[in-house]
This record gives sequence, structure tokens and C-alpha cells, in this order.
Amino acid sequence: MNIEVCYTPQAYDLFHNPNAVVVVIDVLRATSAITTAFYNGVSRMIPVSTVEEAYAYKEQGFLVAAERNGEMVEGFDLGNSPFGYMSSKVKGKTIAITTTNGTQAIESARKAQKIIIGSFLNLEAVIDYLLQEKKDVLFVCAGWKNKFNLEDTLFAGAVAHGLIYKYDFITKCDSALAAMHLYSLAKHDLYEFLKNSSHRNRLAKLDLERDIKYCLTPNQCPVIPVMEGKFLVKA
Amino acid sequence: MNIEVCYTPQAYDLFHNPNAVVVVIDVLRATSAITTAFYNGVSRMIPVSTVEEAYAYKEQGFLVAAERNGEMVEGFDLGNSPFGYMSSKVKGKTIAITTTNGTQAIESARKAQKIIIGSFLNLEAVIDYLLQEKKDVLFVCAGWKNKFNLEDTLFAGAVAHGLIYKYDFITKCDSALAAMHLYSLAKHDLYEFLKNSSHRNRLAKLDLERDIKYCLTPNQCPVIPVMEGKFLVKA
Repeated sequence: MNIEVCYTPQAYDLFHNPNAVVVVIDVLRATSAITTAFYNGVSRMIPVSTVEEAYAYKEQGFLVAAERNGEMVEGFDLGNSPFGYMSSKVKGKTIAITTTNGTQAIESARKAQKIIIGSFLNLEAVIDYLLQEKKDVLFVCAGWKNKFNLEDTLFAGAVAHGLIYKYDFITKCDSALAAMHLYSLAKHDLYEFLKNSSHRNRLAKLDLERDIKYCLTPNQCPVIPVMEGKFLVKA
Repeated sequence: MNIEVCYTPQAYDLFHNPNAVVVVIDVLRATSAITTAFYNGVSRMIPVSTVEEAYAYKEQGFLVAAERNGEMVEGFDLGNSPFGYMSSKVKGKTIAITTTNGTQAIESARKAQKIIIGSFLNLEAVIDYLLQEKKDVLFVCAGWKNKFNLEDTLFAGAVAHGLIYKYDFITKCDSALAAMHLYSLAKHDLYEFLKNSSHRNRLAKLDLERDIKYCLTPNQCPVIPVMEGKFLVKA
């Protein structure tokens, strides 16, 4: 089984592999929020690309999350802070969600055979899931507005490292090799490694240090959100 | 002065900066060949995107280089092996050139204010040039068919490292930070670090180990090729 890493949604078509499980990654914070939501009993989520689509769901009475540039869009119920998804008000609910990067990454991979959601919060669960699937793996990093980012790459490297060094996966993909090298440098202190990173600094200006620390702490939410039609559900 | 790294020609428009000097990088092998050519007395080069354009120059009597997928295109005078540009037959000549990735990277950056050619062969010369220019720097990696590659990234990291640790340059760009981290891992033995990389393996199948070793040996050709209109000339 082959591993590849696509650093930005813009590049997805160059990497499309009909036989691969796609892991969509937006560590700060969309896929961390989604993982947290399912761990806290959310029933289904509907990722959408635009604020307009999200608003249409709101008019139909859904709970709706909308984030742009790190902040909750006015008039919606939730942003993409994982802490918003821990309350009892989300349990059993279906939530529509649109974010600056994460939901765009899901959209870019719509033609994939299978899409799951990855974050450090479900790191070991993702590795276990991929080991059971025994298929090629394509990581799709959300990045920031189609630019490469470090934290999503580190997560891809962490999973690739887990698959390659223990099991029957290989890679000939330079972006996967780079992700593993970067993870090897970062793994002992992800928070420290990312201290100069662009997105961490972007969020720090919004006073979201608590979110960042949470999102970089592995294995707090051992669940796998998976796309089924237009819905994300718990695998 | 700010440093950014664009990993593939596809992403250029996201990084375009009218105030930046663009450094185009295709270590294996287009920009190494171009650097070697100018060091060996080539007068001008004309980078073109397509084999058809290259053929038109051939019909006008120019020396013409054409490479696709690692091999010289039949009917042309040169490929992109640097060793082809060391003979006396190139001295004083104008050479048109098209390659799989390198000339596409130059094409993607055509609207840049200034474009220079970088490779390990002119590493210190590139650093010195950028220090004198005192402008923002945008590295444009050729990659492989719009996918990220390691060797171009390492060169961007090497130059960024040289600029940031000694002088008044900064970066807030995650791809520049990643390039510097990767260079810090690779710098003591570039050849060994790249032994599993995709492009090295691609070239190894074509028996080009001598080319690879040459291209990874820094500072053999202290010249700066720079775009002036449609021509590359020696700065």
C-alpha cells in the first residue's frame, strides 16, 4: 500500500487515486473540532463550502457552524473552536459546518472513494483504521488558503511514520518523506516546534492558545469521522 | 525583507510579490545545467515552455536543448545534463531550452520583477546576490509535474538559512520554515539524505548518478543567470 501527501486542496487532482482512503487534515482547527464533536456525541455533520450554503441549513433549523479567518461568522451557532463542541447542546444533533480551509479540503476530495477526518486528537485511531482498511492512503492537508502549512504536514508525517515503520506501507512520494522528516524533528514537542508557524501566530492574535494546546495533544478523542454521501458520521 | 517558498509552479499566483526577486530552482537538473552553461561561457539562453517552440528556434539555426521525463528529446542538440554544457561548442552561443519542469517554473513566474536561476552549483553566489539586492525573496521550486520535491526545497532552505541567520531577512512562511528544517537535517550529506527521494530514483533508472553527484556539490559555478526580457544572461 502506497502513501502520498497532498499539501494543499489546490493540488488534489494531481494526487487523486481512486483506490486510496483520503485523510483530510486541518489541525488548527476544523478537523480537530469535527473529531471533538463526534467524540462528544454529535450524530452527523454536513460540511459545506460557502457561508451561503451554511445559512440555508440554518434557515432549515439545523445547528450551523461557520468560521472565516479564525473567527465565528456572525449569526451562526458555532465556530471551529473544539471547545464549542463539548457542550450537551450538540449531543445527538446534525450540524452543518463551513470553515476557511478544512471544509474546502473535504470538497476538493469529493471524488475520493472514502474520506476520513484526521487530527492529533484521533491519531492512533486513524492509524488503526488505515491498518484495517489495507488500502493506499492519500493525506490531503487543508493548509491556509491553498498554501502549505506545518501542523497539517506534521500530522500526515505522524500517521505515515506509524504506518511505514510498523507495517506493510511504502512511499515514493517526496512530500510524504518530507512530512516524516519534519515529524521526526517535531515529535518531542509539537507546541514548541510550531512556535514560529504562520497559523499558530495567526491564532495567537485571536487569543486561542488554549485551542492550540488542545489540538496538539494526541489521542484525546479516539473516533473516526467518515464521509457517507453528504454527511460525516462516526465510523 | 521577507522570504517565501513556493513549492510548485501551480501555486505561483498565490505567492506573487511584485517587490520580490524570484529564485527559480530545478536542482535535478535544469537550473544546474543553466548555471553550468553560463559558467562555461554560454552567452544567452532562451527558456521556452514547449518542444514546438524549441523546434522553431532550431529551424532558425540556434543550438537547442530539449528534455522531457529525464531524457533528451530526439532531434535536439542537448538535454539537461550539466555535462552537456561544458564543451567548447557552447561557448559564446545562444541556446534555447525547454525542460519538463524547470522552464515551466520560469514561465509561471514571468510577471515577477526579477528572476534569477539557483542551484547548489551557485549557492553562495545566490546568497551574495540577494544580500546586495536587499529585496523580498520568493523561491519558486520546479518540483516534478507540479508536485513538491525534496532537492529543490533543500536548496531554498539552504539559501533562506544563509540569509536569515546572518542578515536582515525574516520569514513568516511555513514552507520556508519547513525548507530550513529539512536543510538542517540534510546539509551534512545531501546525497545520502536524498537517497529515497522520488527524483533521484527517477534519474537513477536512467543511469545519471554522475549528474546527481555533480548537481549536489555546492559552489562549483559562481555565476548568476538572470532573466532580461526573453533571455537569460549572466548578471
